[in-house]
Amino acid sequence: MYPKSLAMLIERLTILPGVGQKTAERYALHLLDQSKEANEELAQAILNAKTKVHPCERCSHFAENELCDICADKSRQSRIICVVESPKDVIAIERIEEYKGVYHVLGGLISTKKGILPEDISLDKLFKRAKDCDELILALNATVEGEMTALYIAKKLQGQVPITRLAFGLPIGGQLDYADDMTLLKAFEGRKSV
Amino acid sequence: MYPKSLAMLIERLTILPGVGQKTAERYALHLLDQSKEANEELAQAILNAKTKVHPCERCSHFAENELCDICADKSRQSRIICVVESPKDVIAIERIEEYKGVYHVLGGLISTKKGILPEDISLDKLFKRAKDCDELILALNATVEGEMTALYIAKKLQGQVPITRLAFGLPIGGQLDYADDMTLLKAFEGRKSV
Repeated sequence: MYPKSLAMLIERLTILPGVGQKTAERYALHLLDQSKEANEELAQAILNAKTKVHPCERCSHFAENELCDICADKSRQSRIICVVESPKDVIAIERIEEYKGVYHVLGGLISTKKGILPEDISLDKLFKRAKDCDELILALNATVEGEMTALYIAKKLQGQVPITRLAFGLPIGGQLDYADDMTLLKAFEGRKSV
Repeated sequence: MYPKSLAMLIERLTILPGVGQKTAERYALHLLDQSKEANEELAQAILNAKTKVHPCERCSHFAENELCDICADKSRQSRIICVVESPKDVIAIERIEEYKGVYHVLGGLISTKKGILPEDISLDKLFKRAKDCDELILALNATVEGEMTALYIAKKLQGQVPITRLAFGLPIGGQLDYADDMTLLKAFEGRKSV
């Protein structure tokens, strides 16, 4: 039905997350309608990103140079380290424009289910960095894996460095009767006097 | 927040239809997670499709050679021409594997609202082709523009060639009480004895 090169484009587009045959067709036909330049720019951007972006030598966040923009920024407090699972988490935290420390990206969480062991993620590097820092903030998912990883880190560094973790509770705008039991429990445990 | 090349990729991905900042971010991060080869294949597919695919000399459907696969197929009945708005319609009709004639892609519909005149779409070419054909099937959208274009073609070729058009009526699986008035009216008008 489709000429070969168009069929190929449709197939390749299905590597995008959540994109099936129908959506890939829509994308491909739309791309054909765009200018040659727009197509070349997109293709070039795909090649560039993959070639230029690699993990920061220090924190494993996305970087184009040896250090990522955050580690390279001298105005950030390099003795406060926020531990996250992935670069996406760094980006989410950076978006609130509140945190002024640096990060450590683990690149995964300890998981018995998925068979991810402590040595499979960037923990050794974290323990080395943690030695001369003033605060380690654990900003991991509130899941079994996140809890397990947080516990592992806390146990390992107990007494060596002050460790904190993000507060659990009701999300802002969330309705109490829609909150799951665990969230509600955590919200109760963490209640504060007003 | 994002390294420059990643930010650029995200921006470029928003040219895809219905893809905003959030989705583009998700796509970009996913692409970074893929192998270098997968990224190169996608980029190459984008470049290839745009370079190799062009309108068929005869019917304006997608083609990689002078003629599209359908026009080049000697087993198709070249004296039956189905007139459609866009290549997407050809693909939809080909999917039912019923029609054995050829196509003519107009590349648009006459529209007073959008200021599209008869000379802006591939009508002259159609009138030339229609001269030696046995049947012209109008398969245009059931919209004001589709109706207007169908009427224009029918008027122009009246008496020269048998013209038919797709049936209107209730869509299969559609519920009568959900059908709009126009569809219901057309379904009544086109009723058949059982």
